[in-house]
Amino acid sequence: MLVVNCNTDAQVTAGIARTAQAAARTCVVRAVQPTWGPTSAEGYLESYLSAAAVIERVAQERSYDAVVLAGFGEHGREGVRQLANVPVVDITEAAVLTACLLGHRFGVVTTLASTLAGIADTIELIGLSGRSAGVRASGIPVSHAGVATSDGADPGLDALERESRLLLDAGADVIVLGCAAFGGLDARLSERLGGIPVVDGVGQAVRLAETLLAAGLTTSKHGPYAPPRAKVWTERTLPLPAKISRPGS
Amino acid sequence: MLVVNCNTDAQVTAGIARTAQAAARTCVVRAVQPTWGPTSAEGYLESYLSAAAVIERVAQERSYDAVVLAGFGEHGREGVRQLANVPVVDITEAAVLTACLLGHRFGVVTTLASTLAGIADTIELIGLSGRSAGVRASGIPVSHAGVATSDGADPGLDALERESRLLLDAGADVIVLGCAAFGGLDARLSERLGGIPVVDGVGQAVRLAETLLAAGLTTSKHGPYAPPRAKVWTERTLPLPAKISRPGS
Amino acid sequence: MLVVNCNTDAQVTAGIARTAQAAARTCVVRAVQPTWGPTSAEGYLESYLSAAAVIERVAQERSYDAVVLAGFGEHGREGVRQLANVPVVDITEAAVLTACLLGHRFGVVTTLASTLAGIADTIELIGLSGRSAGVRASGIPVSHAGVATSDGADPGLDALERESRLLLDAGADVIVLGCAAFGGLDARLSERLGGIPVVDGVGQAVRLAETLLAAGLTTSKHGPYAPPRAKVWTERTLPLPAKISRPGS
Amino acid sequence: MLVVNCNTDAQVTAGIARTAQAAARTCVVRAVQPTWGPTSAEGYLESYLSAAAVIERVAQERSYDAVVLAGFGEHGREGVRQLANVPVVDITEAAVLTACLLGHRFGVVTTLASTLAGIADTIELIGLSGRSAGVRASGIPVSHAGVATSDGADPGLDALERESRLLLDAGADVIVLGCAAFGGLDARLSERLGGIPVVDGVGQAVRLAETLLAAGLTTSKHGPYAPPRAKVWTERTLPLPAKISRPGS
Amino acid sequence: MLVVNCNTDAQVTAGIARTAQAAARTCVVRAVQPTWGPTSAEGYLESYLSAAAVIERVAQERSYDAVVLAGFGEHGREGVRQLANVPVVDITEAAVLTACLLGHRFGVVTTLASTLAGIADTIELIGLSGRSAGVRASGIPVSHAGVATSDGADPGLDALERESRLLLDAGADVIVLGCAAFGGLDARLSERLGGIPVVDGVGQAVRLAETLLAAGLTTSKHGPYAPPRAKVWTERTLPLPAKISRPGS
Amino acid sequence: MLVVNCNTDAQVTAGIARTAQAAARTCVVRAVQPTWGPTSAEGYLESYLSAAAVIERVAQERSYDAVVLAGFGEHGREGVRQLANVPVVDITEAAVLTACLLGHRFGVVTTLASTLAGIADTIELIGLSGRSAGVRASGIPVSHAGVATSDGADPGLDALERESRLLLDAGADVIVLGCAAFGGLDARLSERLGGIPVVDGVGQAVRLAETLLAAGLTTSKHGPYAPPRAKVWTERTLPLPAKISRPGS
Repeated sequence: MLVVNCNTDAQVTAGIARTAQAAARTCVVRAVQPTWGPTSAEGYLESYLSAAAVIERVAQERSYDAVVLAGFGEHGREGVRQLANVPVVDITEAAVLTACLLGHRFGVVTTLASTLAGIADTIELIGLSGRSAGVRASGIPVSHAGVATSDGADPGLDALERESRLLLDAGADVIVLGCAAFGGLDARLSERLGGIPVVDGVGQAVRLAETLLAAGLTTSKHGPYAPPRAKVWTERTLPLPAKISRPGS
Repeated sequence: MLVVNCNTDAQVTAGIARTAQAAARTCVVRAVQPTWGPTSAEGYLESYLSAAAVIERVAQERSYDAVVLAGFGEHGREGVRQLANVPVVDITEAAVLTACLLGHRFGVVTTLASTLAGIADTIELIGLSGRSAGVRASGIPVSHAGVATSDGADPGLDALERESRLLLDAGADVIVLGCAAFGGLDARLSERLGGIPVVDGVGQAVRLAETLLAAGLTTSKHGPYAPPRAKVWTERTLPLPAKISRPGS
Repeated sequence: MLVVNCNTDAQVTAGIARTAQAAARTCVVRAVQPTWGPTSAEGYLESYLSAAAVIERVAQERSYDAVVLAGFGEHGREGVRQLANVPVVDITEAAVLTACLLGHRFGVVTTLASTLAGIADTIELIGLSGRSAGVRASGIPVSHAGVATSDGADPGLDALERESRLLLDAGADVIVLGCAAFGGLDARLSERLGGIPVVDGVGQAVRLAETLLAAGLTTSKHGPYAPPRAKVWTERTLPLPAKISRPGS
Repeated sequence: MLVVNCNTDAQVTAGIARTAQAAARTCVVRAVQPTWGPTSAEGYLESYLSAAAVIERVAQERSYDAVVLAGFGEHGREGVRQLANVPVVDITEAAVLTACLLGHRFGVVTTLASTLAGIADTIELIGLSGRSAGVRASGIPVSHAGVATSDGADPGLDALERESRLLLDAGADVIVLGCAAFGGLDARLSERLGGIPVVDGVGQAVRLAETLLAAGLTTSKHGPYAPPRAKVWTERTLPLPAKISRPGS
Repeated sequence: MLVVNCNTDAQVTAGIARTAQAAARTCVVRAVQPTWGPTSAEGYLESYLSAAAVIERVAQERSYDAVVLAGFGEHGREGVRQLANVPVVDITEAAVLTACLLGHRFGVVTTLASTLAGIADTIELIGLSGRSAGVRASGIPVSHAGVATSDGADPGLDALERESRLLLDAGADVIVLGCAAFGGLDARLSERLGGIPVVDGVGQAVRLAETLLAAGLTTSKHGPYAPPRAKVWTERTLPLPAKISRPGS
Repeated sequence: MLVVNCNTDAQVTAGIARTAQAAARTCVVRAVQPTWGPTSAEGYLESYLSAAAVIERVAQERSYDAVVLAGFGEHGREGVRQLANVPVVDITEAAVLTACLLGHRFGVVTTLASTLAGIADTIELIGLSGRSAGVRASGIPVSHAGVATSDGADPGLDALERESRLLLDAGADVIVLGCAAFGGLDARLSERLGGIPVVDGVGQAVRLAETLLAAGLTTSKHGPYAPPRAKVWTERTLPLPAKISRPGS
C-alpha cells in the first residue's frame, strides 16, 4: 500500500509511515513524499502545488495495491483516482466518513487558520457539511504538531483540547484530527476529552483501503475517474518560480 | 460480532450470516433475527416495528464486540447506538459511505417502491443526499431477492441491471445494493454492468466495524448516543394487534 | 379523534387530553397511551420503542376519525400514516408548520439535551431546518414540565424563558414548545416574552386535524403511506429485555 | 375574515368568496379585490404590482379578524403581516404546509408557464423546496380555470390531470392546486387521479386562519413583521403608466 | 443608464447619482426616484410598495440602455426585468456576486434590524446564502447613513466598523455595504478595517451593467422575464391609504 | 492584464487572446499559457496538473494589474488569489455570476463528458448549484471547438445547440459556454437559439476584472487568500512521469 504524504518534510513522512503501518493488517505500507513542493501544505496555493506533486509522485510508482493520500483537506484525490487502477482513500474522507459512524455531529481541529477554508470546501464536496459542527484552528503549524517542550508541557495538545471543547460546545460529539501529522495524538486527546472519540484519518484510511481490497472494490472507471485520453503533454524541467518558493523574500 | 437481520425470515438471516462471515477477518459472526415482527420490512410501518424488535433483540445479548444492523434504509440505528457500548454499523451507512470512496455519485437499487421514501429519508439524515443520483425500485420483494428460476433465468438480476442502468444514465458511477438480502449479487451485477463497482452493505458493514475495533473507536457516549436515564418502563406481554400482523385481512 | 401520548405516564396523558379537548371544535378527543414502553421518551432508543408501542396502540383502536401523535420530535408518524385511513397529524409538524405562518424564523425549547438530536432530525425530514433558528434544552425532564414549587416559583417556566430568549437572540421571532407535556405553558411563556407567539403542538395538531376532516382530506395512499402488503408476522409475548427497561442497573 | 383576491377580476373574486365561505366554520368571509392592477397575476411584474395593490386594499379595511391572501405564489404576504394585527395566511403557505401532512412529496399544478419561477421562489422561501416533486404549468390562464366547453368537455381539468400525472411519476403523492381560481376543482381532480389528495389553498387557508384565531395566535410583532416606523410618504394620484397596463400595444 | 433609487428621498437619490456617475465609464447616469412611496424602505411592507413604485417609475421612461436598481435587499428586480428590454442590475446582486470574486465568505452590514429578514431572503433567492457569513444591522437608519456629527465624530461609520468586525470574526473576509445610501463609505470603512475589501453595490452595479452592454448581453426573454401578456388593467387614482402612509398615527 | 490559458495549446491561447483583447476596454491583454502540462484539461487529473502549471506561470510574471484564469471549471483559482496582489477572475465564476443577472436558471454546455463532474464541483463551491439547470457535454473536445468542416457544416455548433435546447427544456433561460476555447461562439449560438443569452466567460472575466480595477477592489488578504508563510520548498527539475504524459501507451 502506497501512503503519500503531501509535503516534502521527511520527518512528517516518517511519522505517517509509523501510524499507517501500525494500522495495516494485511498490507505492507510504503510511505513516500513528493520529490518537490512545500514542506507543509497550509493553504490553497501550497495545496494545489502539492496536489500536482502528489499525482506525479504516484505516477512514478509501478506496483501497489492501494493508495492512501495523507494530506488533510488537500486537493488532488480525484486526480489520483483517475491515475490509479486501485482503491484510493484520502484521509479527509476516511476521517469524516468514520466520524459519521460514531456520533451525530463531528468537529475538526486542524493546524493554522489558513487551512480552514480549504478544509471546509473539501467537506462540502464530500457532501457532509451538514454533519459538521465546525472546523477550528489550533494555531499549531504542521511542523510542530505533537512536539512536547523540554519541561514536559505539550502546548500543541493543550491547543487541540481547547479547540475541541469549543467544538463540543457547538454540538460535536466526535472530534476529527485535521492534519496528517497529528497521528498518534488521537488517543491522548480522547483521554483528555473524557473519552470523546477522536478520529485520526491516517490510520483509518489505511484500514478503509484494506476493506476495499478485501471486498474486491476499486474506483469506478465509468465516470469522471476514467483514465484521461492520450494527448500531447509539454514536458518541463524548470525549477519552481521564486515567487512561490520564497514568498516572504 | 453481532449481525442483526431486521426481519424474522430465517432464510434471509442465514444468507446474511454467510455474507457477513465471508467478509469478517478478525471476528466471528453471530447472525440473529428479532423474536417478533414482519418477515420483511418494506415500508415505514414495518420498519418502525422492526426497529423496536431489533433494539430488543440486541438488548437480549450479553457479550459482543460490535453490532452490524442488516436492514437497508431501516430505522433504529441511533437507538442501538445508545444501547450498546461497542461500535454499531448500519449497512445503509456502510454502503453509501463506501460508495463515496469509489465514485462521484452513487445510485441505489432496492426491492419494492414502498421502501423508496424511507431509504431517501435515511440518506438525507446520513447527510449524503447530494452525492446520490437516485434510488430506484426493482420490483423484487425481499423474499425473492436472488432467486433464479428453474430454467436458469434470473429475473431479479435482470431487474437490478435494468434499474442500475437508469441510475448510471442519471449520473451514478457506483451502484449500491439497497437490501440486506441482495448479498452475493454484487459481483454478478458488477459483471453485468461492465465493471461498475457494486457495493453490498452487509459485507462492508462487517469490514467497517472491524476497522473501528482495530482503531479502538466506538460510539460517542457524550451526545445523543449516551445511554438513556434509568426510568420506569411498562412491561408488555400482549401479542401484536391483528391490524398490524394481518393488514390484508 | 384519537390523541396518542407516546409515553406511559398517565398524568402526562391526562394533561394532553385536557389540552387537546380544549382545542377541539368538532371532535371528541379520546386520549390514550401505549400499553408498554417508557414513562417518557427522551432520546433515540426510547423514541424508537415508543414509536412501535404507539403504532400498536393505534392498531388496537377500531373507530376514530383522525389521529394526533403527541410526542414532540418522536419517531413513528409515517408508520401510523400507513396504518390509518384517516388524517394523522404529529405535534412536531403541527407546531413548526404553524410557526412558519407566524414569523420568519422559529426556535424550539424542549426538555433534556438528550432529545435535541432527534428533534433536529425530525425538523430536517419535515424540510424546515432552514426556517429554524435553533433547538435548545431547558433541562426540565418531561415528568417535571410545568410543575411549580410549593413556594410559587416555577423553575420550569424560568428555564423555558431563559432558553427562549437565547433563541430570540439567535434570530427566532416565534417559539415552539418542544414537548407534549408543555401544553398550557404557551400563554404564560408568551406573556413572559412580551407577546412573542408561543406555539403548543398539541392544541394546534388537533385543530389542523379538524381542518383536514373539514376539507375531506386524508393521508395519500398512493405513495409510501399505502398500507403494507399482507405478509407473515411473528407474534411476540416476551417482556422487555432488562437492559432496556433498567438501563441504570 | 378578510379574503383578498390579488387580481381585479370580479368573477375570480366571487369564486374565491364561495370557496372561502364554504370552508369557514366560525368566520364570516368578506372577499375583496384590489382597486387597481391586472385582471390576473401571471408573472413577476404583475405579482409585484398586485402585491402593492393588495397591501393597499387591506389598509383600506378597518375591522377584520384575520386575512387570507388568495394569490398562489404571489408576493406581498410579509408586507401584509407587518400591516395587520391579526393572523395572515397566504394560500401558497396553506396549501404546501397542508400537503406536507398528507404525503411525502407534493407537486404543484398551476396556470401558465410564466408563473413557474415565482412559485418556485415562494416555495423556496417558505423552506419546503425539499418536499416538492415539481411545479408544472397546465397552460390554462387564470381567466379560463374551470371553464367547461358547451359540449361538456373540460379541457382545463384534462390539462390539470395530465400535468398531475407527470408530477406523480416524478415522485409526488399529493397534488397542490396552484391558482386561487382553481377552487372547486380539487374534488374533481382527486377523483380523476384515483383518490390522490388534491389540496386547494383557498379553503385550507381559511381553515388555518381559524385555527390561529382559536389558538389565540397571531403574527409575531417582535421581528421583521413589526409595524414600520412612522415616516414621510409621498402621495400618488397618477394612473398606471401605459407600458404596464398595455404591454402588448 | 437609468439608476432608480427605491425611495422618495431626493437627498438619497442625489447621493446615489453621484456614486453611480463616478463609477460609469461609458454611460451617462440618469438617477430617478419613484413618484410615490416611502422616504426609505426598511422592511417588507415598504419594500413591496417601493417595488411597485419603482416598476411604475421605470415604465414612465422611454429611452435608456440599462437599468440599475438602487435598493439593497429590496423587491422588484424580476418585475423590472420583464418590463425592460435592456440589462437590469440590482445592487444586491452586484454587491454579493462581486464579493464572491474577492473573498471566501462575505458579510453584509446594513441599516436597521427591520431589514435583515428581507436581505436574507434576497440572498437566498440569488442562491448565495452558502457564501454568506451573516447580515448584521448597524442601527443607522437610511436617512442618517454617512452623516458625521458637528464635532467630526462619525457614529454611523463607527457602527459599521463594529458590526463588520463581528462579521469578520464569524468568518467573512469581504464586507458588503447593505444600503444604497452607504455609497462613498466603502473606502473609509475598508481603511478602518485594515484593508478588508468593502463592496458598494451602487458603483459596482453600474460597472456590471456596462459589462453587459459591452458584451451585447441582456435579460433573457425566453423564460420568466418575458414580457407579460396584454390584458386588462384597472386604473387607479386614489391616494395611499392612511394606514400605510402614517403607520404611527 | 494577464490572461492565462490553462493548457499548452498555443492555438487555444491565441483564440483566448483575441476574445480577451476584444472585450478589454482599459487594459492591454497579455495572454500566456503554462510552460508544461497537457494540451487540454478535460478531467480532474489534467485539471490539477494544469492548476499547478498555471500557478507557476503566473509566478513567473512580474507586473500585471489583474489576472484572468481561462480554464472553465478548472482548479487553482484560490491559489492564484493567494499569489497575486491584484484582482483575479476565473472564467467559470465570471460566466455563472453573469448568467445570474440575465435569467432565472442557467445551463452549461461544455466539451467532453469527462469534464462534467469537475464543473459541477466548481459551481457547487461557487455556491450557485441552486441556480443551475444542468451541465451537459457536447462531445466536442477542446481542440475541435468551433472548427467548421470544409463543406461549411459546423458539427460543433450543432452539438452545442442540441445540448442547449435540452438545458432550456430543463428550465434554463440562459446558456453558459463551458470552455475557454468556445470564445466567439456565443453570438452564433445565441442566434441559433432565437436570442437566448449565451455567456462566454473569457470576455466577461476580462470585463469583470476591469470593474474591480475601476472600483479599487482586489482580493481580500485577510482570510484564506493571504500569502502563504515563507517556508522551505523542495526544487524540482524532473520531467513529467510517463504514466501522466502518455496515459494511453
